[in-house]
Amino acid sequence: MDIENLSINLATTRGSWGFAEAVEACLARGIRAISPWRDQVAAIGLDEAARIVHANGLRVTGLCRGGMFPAATPEGRRAAIDDNRRAIDEAAALGADCLVFVVGGLPAGSRDLPATRRMVEDGFSAILDYAIAAEVPLAIEPLHPMYAADRCCVNTLKQALDLAERLGPDIGVAVDAYHVWWDPELPEQIARAGRQNRIFAHHICDWLVPTNHLLLDRGMMGDGVIDLKALRHMIEAAGFHGPQEVEIFSAENWWKKPGEVVLDTVIERFATVC
Amino acid sequence: MDIENLSINLATTRGSWGFAEAVEACLARGIRAISPWRDQVAAIGLDEAARIVHANGLRVTGLCRGGMFPAATPEGRRAAIDDNRRAIDEAAALGADCLVFVVGGLPAGSRDLPATRRMVEDGFSAILDYAIAAEVPLAIEPLHPMYAADRCCVNTLKQALDLAERLGPDIGVAVDAYHVWWDPELPEQIARAGRQNRIFAHHICDWLVPTNHLLLDRGMMGDGVIDLKALRHMIEAAGFHGPQEVEIFSAENWWKKPGEVVLDTVIERFATVC
Repeated sequence: MDIENLSINLATTRGSWGFAEAVEACLARGIRAISPWRDQVAAIGLDEAARIVHANGLRVTGLCRGGMFPAATPEGRRAAIDDNRRAIDEAAALGADCLVFVVGGLPAGSRDLPATRRMVEDGFSAILDYAIAAEVPLAIEPLHPMYAADRCCVNTLKQALDLAERLGPDIGVAVDAYHVWWDPELPEQIARAGRQNRIFAHHICDWLVPTNHLLLDRGMMGDGVIDLKALRHMIEAAGFHGPQEVEIFSAENWWKKPGEVVLDTVIERFATVC
Repeated sequence: MDIENLSINLATTRGSWGFAEAVEACLARGIRAISPWRDQVAAIGLDEAARIVHANGLRVTGLCRGGMFPAATPEGRRAAIDDNRRAIDEAAALGADCLVFVVGGLPAGSRDLPATRRMVEDGFSAILDYAIAAEVPLAIEPLHPMYAADRCCVNTLKQALDLAERLGPDIGVAVDAYHVWWDPELPEQIARAGRQNRIFAHHICDWLVPTNHLLLDRGMMGDGVIDLKALRHMIEAAGFHGPQEVEIFSAENWWKKPGEVVLDTVIERFATVC
C-alpha cells in the first residue's frame, strides 16, 4: 500500500471531527491528502483552513461541493450560480485538485427531468469561464440514479461525459465507486473519460447488502459488493493515478464510532481490498 | 379514462387480499386485467386461478415472476432453470401476456457483476425454446440500479434490449416507470424497443421524495415525481397500447390501507395523472 495514494474525504470522519482535528489525525497516520466539505471549511474559516493546508503541504483532492443548479425561479438559479462562484473561490484558496459537483435534482413541484438537466447545463455554462480564470478544475460527479429526484439528475458516467463534451475541454468528472459500480457501460465510459483526460477524482466506499438508507448507509471498503480493485485497475488503465478518496456517509455505523477507529479501518482496508 | 387499459398487479393489494378476493374487487369496479404473483397463484392453486381467469374473461397482463438465475453453484443455476420452466407452465395455464423476469443479482459472496450477467444470459438461453414451445412471451424487466446487487443485474432498458437482441426475436421487455424514469436514454430506448416489437408490459407507480425503503416504499401515481403521462406517450408512440399495470410495493402505507381504498385511489389517479 502506498499511503500517498489515500485521501480522506472529511465526510468520512464527520461523526467525530471538524477540519482541524481530522487533518491532525490524518497527518499522525501519514495521510497527506484530504477532501473537505464547504461547511467544514466555513466552520474553521477559509483562511485558517487554507493556512493548515499550505503549512502542512496537504493535497486537497477535491472540495465538496458545488452544484445544486436547478431551481423553480430565475432568482433561485441566479443565487445558485453566485454560490457556485463562491465555491470556486474557496477551492482556489485551498489549491484543490477540483471542485466536485453534485448538480442538483428536480426543483420543488417539478416532474420535468429534461428541463432540470438543461438548467444544470446552463448553470455550468454560466460559471465555466470564472472557474477557468481561477484555475479550478470542475468535476461533474454522476450520482447513483436513486438520487435523480432530489440530489443529482446526472446519473451515469456516460451522461456526465456527454455533458462535459458539450461544455468543452476544461471540465471533467469525479468517478465514485458507489455511484457507478452497477453500470454495464462502466469499462468503456472510464476508458472514454481517460482518453479525454477528464478523470479528476476517484472516490471509494462500498455498497452494502442490505442498504438501509438511500443516503446515509454507505459501507467501508470490503464490507459490501463492489469490486474496488477492478475499478481501480480500470481507472489506472485510463491514465488517472491520483489518490483514491474515501468518502463514507454512515449515520448509524461509522459516524458513531471514534474517528481513530474509522481512520485505522480505512487504512487497513485500503491496504487489502482497494 | 378507459378502464380497459388499467391492470392491477396483485402485489398492489397484497396487504388485504389474495388472488380470488382481489379479482372480485377488480371486477366489481370494471377492471378486467390483472397480474398475479406466483405465490398468490400457488396459494389458491394453479387450476383454480386459471378457472377464475378464464370464467371471467380476465386479461392477465403478466405473471410475476421468473428469473433469479445467478447462483454460486451449477446445481443452484440448474435449479433456477427448472423453476423458470415451471413458471412458464404457470404463465401458459393462465394465458398470461408474458412472464415477467426479475433476473437476479450477485450470488452470495460474489463481487463479479460481469460474470453474474453472463449467468443471466445463459439462463435465458436455457429456457427460451421451452417458452417458445409453450407460447409464453418472456419479458425482461430492467430494475432500478439500486437493485443491482441483490435482485436484478439488468439495470437499464438499453442493457435489457442489448440482451434481448442477443437472445433473438422471441423475447421482450417490461417497462416499469419506477425503474426507468431517471434514465437519460429513455426516449431513444423506448423507441428502439417499439421498433423491435419488444414492449410486452407497461408498469406504473411513482417515485416518492423522500423514499424511505429501497424496496417497499413505492408511491401511488401522482404522489411522486415521475412524469407518467410523458412516459405513456413515449410507450404509445412506440406502438404498445396494452394496459398500464399498477404495481405498488408499499409496506408502511398502501399495504396498510383497506384494499377497497387502494383500488379506488388507483382508479382515480389512473384517470387523472397517468
